[in-house]
This record gives sequence, structure tokens and C-alpha cells, in this order.
Amino acid sequence: MGTDSPFLLAAVSLLSALQMGYLARRVGLSRMAYKVLPPSVTGPPEFERTFRAHQNCVECYPVFLVTLWTCGMFFSEATAATGGLLYIIARQIYFNGYVKSTKKRLPGFYLTVAVFVTLSLLGFIGILHGIQHKYSHVHL
Amino acid sequence: MGTDSPFLLAAVSLLSALQMGYLARRVGLSRMAYKVLPPSVTGPPEFERTFRAHQNCVECYPVFLVTLWTCGMFFSEATAATGGLLYIIARQIYFNGYVKSTKKRLPGFYLTVAVFVTLSLLGFIGILHGIQHKYSHVHL
Amino acid sequence: MGTDSPFLLAAVSLLSALQMGYLARRVGLSRMAYKVLPPSVTGPPEFERTFRAHQNCVECYPVFLVTLWTCGMFFSEATAATGGLLYIIARQIYFNGYVKSTKKRLPGFYLTVAVFVTLSLLGFIGILHGIQHKYSHVHL
Repeated sequence: MGTDSPFLLAAVSLLSALQMGYLARRVGLSRMAYKVLPPSVTGPPEFERTFRAHQNCVECYPVFLVTLWTCGMFFSEATAATGGLLYIIARQIYFNGYVKSTKKRLPGFYLTVAVFVTLSLLGFIGILHGIQHKYSHVHL
Repeated sequence: MGTDSPFLLAAVSLLSALQMGYLARRVGLSRMAYKVLPPSVTGPPEFERTFRAHQNCVECYPVFLVTLWTCGMFFSEATAATGGLLYIIARQIYFNGYVKSTKKRLPGFYLTVAVFVTLSLLGFIGILHGIQHKYSHVHL
Repeated sequence: MGTDSPFLLAAVSLLSALQMGYLARRVGLSRMAYKVLPPSVTGPPEFERTFRAHQNCVECYPVFLVTLWTCGMFFSEATAATGGLLYIIARQIYFNGYVKSTKKRLPGFYLTVAVFVTLSLLGFIGILHGIQHKYSHVHL
């Protein structure tokens, strides 16, 4: 890779992958604490909230990667990487809140949505700008 | 990014990410309609079908991204992007069908499999062609 | 794509996507064998173990793709591709073991973790080295 490689996007992606591993570990620890043996996924409310919090992060993760890289490659790498760090923080707030109570998942959830909307919009702007540039370049 | 950047693949990826967000929202609305409070994932049959339809899309999504980009980078971007749009339509047919009845998920499911098989095969052809080209290039 | 394209990473990614399709098919066959009709995900213990084994692979898959490509693009493509093949083998051992008994999922699980730790560490080393190179290049 050259010196213009997307180091920041790669670093944030790897950091978010580590977070996914950490959250999976938290589910494993919750299994032990509440004696919920695999393959069961039902048990005391706190275990079920921990399990669902992780599942929600699993659902969000590929969507996050797509918006992070689209924004980073077609709009601005630094902006995308900042959004990516915010996403990681948002997911941690969401997870820790959800473990405590169903209601406490909401602040982290809204912050997650805000990051998604921002990264997607900037990504779309970057793509449209790139396509416009490509065709004006071809025609002139 | 230069004018030869994969704009189409990025645009289709972002569109599919938006669809994932929309399908997650549909599960949330179904939760409200049938009063299934998180973290519970069981309830009336229509809620459970909606929930499983979304889960199936979550399972398919990273596989889709891999086949889309492999086909697009190593075979043809326009072909892959067309396949990607078909995938998005297939998932929508699948989801809407599954919400109605378990049987009605099948047409969208078969179309999804057809897109996966096509993108994977073309991706493999592209990779093999590229490797062949690389080594013939090195040896001559 | 030029002759320096990441053919090995693309080939391993596509192979792992095929494995995900195969594992999903195994869940479908288990549904038929134990007469567990969708959208239900509960039934005899063997079905539930098969279902959870697949779910665990779904959870791991995006994390795998991030570590594979980060290691491959910023450290070494051949090393990452080798790690990727090991991951595919690890997941197969995990899945086949888990179908038999909850305890037999452990060897494949530990091998999966070992691959994740290795790919992540090498990826981080590669990124740090790249950033260092970039800035020493800029300053001199």
C-alpha cells in the first residue's frame, strides 16, 4: 500500500472489530453469571437484554462498515473516521445502557442512528459528486 | 478517488445499507403494532415472521457484499451493480412475502439464491482469469 | 484490476461466503429433519445446536472480513489468505462439533479466536508501520 492508503478507515474498522469481540465476550460472561448454558438464549431479564444488545450490534455492524467506507472513500477519510469513532462510542453507550434496562438503550440508539444518517448522506454526496465529475470529464 | 472509482458498487452498497435500516424499522413498527417489548423476540405469528425475515436478511447481507464486490472488481462493475439491484428487489419481495405468510417468502428466497449463484460464479471466473493473466504475464 | 490486485483475499472471501451459504443450508436441512417449521427457531436440542452454530458464524463473519482484509492490505496478502483458510477450517470444525454436542464446539472456537488475534495483531502492526512511514516520508 502507498502512503495515500486509507490507514484511518482501516484502523477504525479494526477497532470496531475488536469491540464486536469484546461485546461477544460480555455475552459469554453473562451466560456464566446467570448460568444460561448454550445453545439456550433465554434466561433472566438481564441476560436477555445483554444478548439482545449484542444481537443488535451484530445487525448494525455490516451497515456501519458500508457507510464508513463509502463516506471515507468518496467524501472525506478524516470525517468518516471521526464518525466511526463516534459509532463505537454510541454502541458502547447503547450496550451498557441496555444491560441495565430496556429504556437505557435509547440514548446510544439515537446516537447510532445519527451517525448512520450522517455517514450515509455524506457518502451519497461524495458518490454523486464523483459521478458528475466523471461524466463532465468524459464529455469535455 | 479517481474517475475510474467503483461508484456503481458504492452506490448499490449504500442503497442496500439503507434497505437494511428500513427493514430494521419495519421490525420496530411490528413490535409496536403487536406490543412485543424488547428484549422479547417472541409473540404473535406475524411479528415472529417479520422478525425472522429481518434476521434472514442480516444473515445474507455480508455474503451479498462479498459477492457484489468480488464480481464488480474482478468481472464487471455494471453486471455486479445490476445483480446488486436485483438482490435488493429480491430481499424486498422476500421480506414482504414472509410478513404475509411463511410460504410467500419462497419466491424472494429463490431470486436471492439465483443472484448469489450468478455473482459468485462471475466473481470466481474473474479471479481465475486475473490469476491466469498475472502468471502468464510474469512468465513471458 | 491490474496484476497486483488482491486475488488471494478475494478468492478466500468468496470461499468463506460459499461456506456461509453451505452452513445456512445445513440449518435448512436440520429444520426438515426435525420438522421445525419457520419462523420457529426452537425444537429438539440437535436442531437448536445447529441453529446456534450458524448464528455464531453469522456473528463472526463481518469481523473475519475486516481482519482478513486489514491484515492482507497492510501486512501481507499471503499471510492473511493463509489465516483466512484456517478460519474457514476452524468454523467447519466448530459447526460440526457443535451439531454433535455443546462441548465439541470448543476446539473450533479456540482456533477461531487464535486466527482473529493473529490477523488483528498483524493488521495493527501493518497499519502502524504504514502511518509511521507516511509521516517520516512527509517530514523528510
